[in-house]
Amino acid sequence: MAIVRFDSGPRMSQAVVFGQMIFLAGQVAETKAGHSVTEQTTEILGQIDALLARAGSDKDHILSATIYLTDISTFEEMNLVWESWVTPDLTPARATVEAKLAAPQYTVEIQVTAARK
Amino acid sequence: MAIVRFDSGPRMSQAVVFGQMIFLAGQVAETKAGHSVTEQTTEILGQIDALLARAGSDKDHILSATIYLTDISTFEEMNLVWESWVTPDLTPARATVEAKLAAPQYTVEIQVTAARK
Amino acid sequence: MAIVRFDSGPRMSQAVVFGQMIFLAGQVAETKAGHSVTEQTTEILGQIDALLARAGSDKDHILSATIYLTDISTFEEMNLVWESWVTPDLTPARATVEAKLAAPQYTVEIQVTAARK
Repeated sequence: MAIVRFDSGPRMSQAVVFGQMIFLAGQVAETKAGHSVTEQTTEILGQIDALLARAGSDKDHILSATIYLTDISTFEEMNLVWESWVTPDLTPARATVEAKLAAPQYTVEIQVTAARK
Repeated sequence: MAIVRFDSGPRMSQAVVFGQMIFLAGQVAETKAGHSVTEQTTEILGQIDALLARAGSDKDHILSATIYLTDISTFEEMNLVWESWVTPDLTPARATVEAKLAAPQYTVEIQVTAARK
Repeated sequence: MAIVRFDSGPRMSQAVVFGQMIFLAGQVAETKAGHSVTEQTTEILGQIDALLARAGSDKDHILSATIYLTDISTFEEMNLVWESWVTPDLTPARATVEAKLAAPQYTVEIQVTAARK
């Protein structure tokens, strides 16, 4: 089976498709870095929508998500955006932990694994 | 291939099955939160047993595990429980790191990916 | 489908193969622990090469990588080694976060999921 990559560069690819599985890079906010957790989460989920669409999937086919927050006290702020985005009862497995990210302007990072439609 | 979910809610599902693969949500102790790492780990591994059974698998079919500890100095305490639970030589790939979790009463979280039997 | 494990012990296996997928344990430096991030990353990537070869794959078939650094300020130092190792445009999805690791002499840990060739 061939591996198909999207937005590949010298460091990583933003999406990697193998068979029926899709692996996305950890997404951080592109234009809303340094803004609120609400704004960053909103942008990140839009980036995930766009990458999944290019890879032949959508948010209802996410299998697993790992969410990193630089400050776990923003857990509920992130969840408000998350819960308005996912389709109830079509939700993925998920883990959320606190971790510092690659640069201080990023306070949310979300990595997902999905199935193709 | 259809996605089959278990214990699905508005935020996440506790288990997601796709083809021969099973993705569990990060498990934290349900009744032993705030208790020792030994007690939390014991309860978490029991929760994993139960979820895997419902999804058509068991602990000998875990492919990969990520373990988060809020205090990495509890690494050996967690490992004692872990090693008494896994079947020697049928052990998964594993990574363990320190991270704060969603609420302070949780000091252990374990996320696993498994194969169906 | 059978699960095939490599370097299995009472705690974990260093590689687990299921169908076309390969799951490696989080790799930390074996002989370069306590040395620089450059030296640890170099050794880790060599360990990943060796494990993937035994499991029937190579670095160009890595689907996803999670990199843990105990000090995120070493992000670019790690990336210099990473980028000289991966094949440009055959790069995996990736996430990098800061986390303390199992022992203080480890300052880099890398966990990868790969496809068989």
